[in-house]
Amino acid sequence: MLLELIDPSRSDYAERLRALGDRTASYSPDVDRAVAEIVAAVRARGDAAVAELTRKFDKRDPRPDGGYEIPRSEWQQAADSLPGDIVQALEHAARRVRDFHEGQVETSYEREADGVRLGLRVVPLRSAGLYVPGGTALYPSSVLMNALPAKVAGVPEVVMVTPGASPEALAAALIAGVDRVFEIGGAQAVAALAYGTETVPRVDKIVGPGNQYVASAKRLVFGDVDIDSIAGPSEVLILADDSADPRFVAADLLAQAEHDVEARPILVTTAAPLVDRVEAELERQLADLPRASIARTALERYGVAVVCPNLDDAVLFANTYAPEHLEVQTRAAAAVADRLVGAGALFVGPYTAEAAGDYLAGPNHVLPTAGAARYASPLGVYDFRKRISVLEYTREGLAGHAADIVRLADVEGLHAHGRSVAMRVADVAEAAGTGERGGEDS
Amino acid sequence: MLLELIDPSRSDYAERLRALGDRTASYSPDVDRAVAEIVAAVRARGDAAVAELTRKFDKRDPRPDGGYEIPRSEWQQAADSLPGDIVQALEHAARRVRDFHEGQVETSYEREADGVRLGLRVVPLRSAGLYVPGGTALYPSSVLMNALPAKVAGVPEVVMVTPGASPEALAAALIAGVDRVFEIGGAQAVAALAYGTETVPRVDKIVGPGNQYVASAKRLVFGDVDIDSIAGPSEVLILADDSADPRFVAADLLAQAEHDVEARPILVTTAAPLVDRVEAELERQLADLPRASIARTALERYGVAVVCPNLDDAVLFANTYAPEHLEVQTRAAAAVADRLVGAGALFVGPYTAEAAGDYLAGPNHVLPTAGAARYASPLGVYDFRKRISVLEYTREGLAGHAADIVRLADVEGLHAHGRSVAMRVADVAEAAGTGERGGEDS
Repeated sequence: MLLELIDPSRSDYAERLRALGDRTASYSPDVDRAVAEIVAAVRARGDAAVAELTRKFDKRDPRPDGGYEIPRSEWQQAADSLPGDIVQALEHAARRVRDFHEGQVETSYEREADGVRLGLRVVPLRSAGLYVPGGTALYPSSVLMNALPAKVAGVPEVVMVTPGASPEALAAALIAGVDRVFEIGGAQAVAALAYGTETVPRVDKIVGPGNQYVASAKRLVFGDVDIDSIAGPSEVLILADDSADPRFVAADLLAQAEHDVEARPILVTTAAPLVDRVEAELERQLADLPRASIARTALERYGVAVVCPNLDDAVLFANTYAPEHLEVQTRAAAAVADRLVGAGALFVGPYTAEAAGDYLAGPNHVLPTAGAARYASPLGVYDFRKRISVLEYTREGLAGHAADIVRLADVEGLHAHGRSVAMRVADVAEAAGTGERGGEDS
Repeated sequence: MLLELIDPSRSDYAERLRALGDRTASYSPDVDRAVAEIVAAVRARGDAAVAELTRKFDKRDPRPDGGYEIPRSEWQQAADSLPGDIVQALEHAARRVRDFHEGQVETSYEREADGVRLGLRVVPLRSAGLYVPGGTALYPSSVLMNALPAKVAGVPEVVMVTPGASPEALAAALIAGVDRVFEIGGAQAVAALAYGTETVPRVDKIVGPGNQYVASAKRLVFGDVDIDSIAGPSEVLILADDSADPRFVAADLLAQAEHDVEARPILVTTAAPLVDRVEAELERQLADLPRASIARTALERYGVAVVCPNLDDAVLFANTYAPEHLEVQTRAAAAVADRLVGAGALFVGPYTAEAAGDYLAGPNHVLPTAGAARYASPLGVYDFRKRISVLEYTREGLAGHAADIVRLADVEGLHAHGRSVAMRVADVAEAAGTGERGGEDS
């Protein structure tokens, strides 16, 4: 059996389900120490430190101009070097992602009454940094999913950093409308974006996945710059009843498991017999899978099959676990999905393979992990905009509020607060008969 | 002179302005260690640990029922014990805050085309915890500002914790619609909300200000639960030209300075002669201010008067500094405000005292500090809701996307991804002439 079977016959059933949901992140003090040194070096010495560290870790010298920026002409060359159907597929994905995200544009609002104008103004961040992992993995879809919401939000400067710019990633940068690309990576790239160097612009927010050094650096610079969430291992929870096709269930568990050996493939079912059929399919499909070894390891380490006595219990478990990806392969799947609130994304019905959401459907594939779906959202346009409150009082407007402001300031013992209001409206308030109180209280 | 004068005649003018903006938070390793122990104890031993720590730090025993929950009947008694005009002022503030925040309700959206249904569903968090500082300070306005956005968002369970429940805070809890109140505080209260105990419910998000132990605990539990930002010292930046009234400028600097000795009162002006007039007013108004000693210390430590050669430079500095509160006391103030993007809240024109926003205007008084206004927003309804992507494909819908999904999965070397799609549409795709490619590639 690849999957650990968790069924109600086990004496530790409830306890095991609780333990499954507990996915507290663990940190490495060694990594954190090394990263703190790197960040301090880049902060203090800018480009010189970035070059030293990039030579050391990535064996790459700066370009003749002394920096690591890849000029736009090279992005175009990279795109031209790719097969046409790949570029078209990236353009297709970009169109759909852009179109879906355009639904997320929030609007400012303003109201005015009785001499008080109040508004909430929504504006784009002025810049954003996008970390794209390099090495052997090429993730052009990650470029699209991180850059497009920022561009739809109206961020004028989107800066991509990557330790190894593949032609696919550069083509995706071009298609997504990225503004600048620097071929640097690791904690030094995060630090350069957070504090700026002579050549790398300081940004307002850093997004994108990375290894543990990148994650540690993002945690460290948070507060001096905004970050997206720190991604934990990828997760899929497939909620299936006896109507589910074991081939599809197995295929989607494998798509999750092939990511890396830390991936979490989870089946939750009301149909105990489904588990054996899925197991058989897993073995059959593993036989000719290029990344079978990774997938098998992830399944053996983290794969589970939870059997629930009824659909209500299965829904409760899914909402409590709050997975990154939640597939609903049941009868009346849309109705079941309406009861699911704990998930980054819901994939409803037999034909909604999670892989469709990873690449092409349109919704973002950057989703909360490790239970953060209880409170966090998919990456979106809203992550690249911020709001500013706007308040404007006329003298008469302030006079109408003065007495209650002074009362509340007095309760909190903040007399300069009350006085700053009372002095502005003293004569108006006196005329209205509330001035004495406002004056005395201040 | 109370304020440090930073004018262009100083040789270190540019450098000093840059240094002013740099407000990196400093952490205390000792506090972090103590807090880690407290959090671990509450996580392991629940209510027993909370009671031990509450006895130790707050000298308070549990109630006869073994817990620290304050029954609702006592909130009502507290409200009944207050002067009627205070309760009415709180109700007035709550009405205005609720009304303004109701403008922030974001809506779900959904689209369907060619066999693909895509949606973004907006739902409230299931629970939120609200930390309210106790001790001598009574901040009922803080209860309103933190609890009301959660209730407007539709959060069904808002749990307040406080180390010392004043009648004012309990009345505010009643008015704001808080659901439960526990009289516990410090890191132990944060841990109880983050992990739950036998009596304290686990929540999805913790908001509200607190001392350094509370801040450290919030940083530590973040990831297992959501938190709002960690508040730094409060800040006001007053952008003033020669039309500004020195009395109002001084009064608002003092309202900021009286908060605590760490507060940042900053004047930025194009009118050098204004500085002396403001200085004179500060001394005059300090003379009879109850919290003069605190305000004077904050002014001496952190008060600055920046003189800018022109309005453009002043606007640039304000946007770069990105203060929590930004007052515009200039001619054509509304037009100047339109150019300001770096701020938590803008207070426009001579009659918009910041104190009005602290208590009654309606917009939230919980605002990003320490430069976080570059990327962060006022606390709002959006902080208590989250979004879930919903995807549903028909078989025909998936067939239309299969070829490009398989292409992109192949580029990323994730063959199980491609196969999970190709197998679902094999016969449809074959009929459409794309099946062979999809099949072979997987």
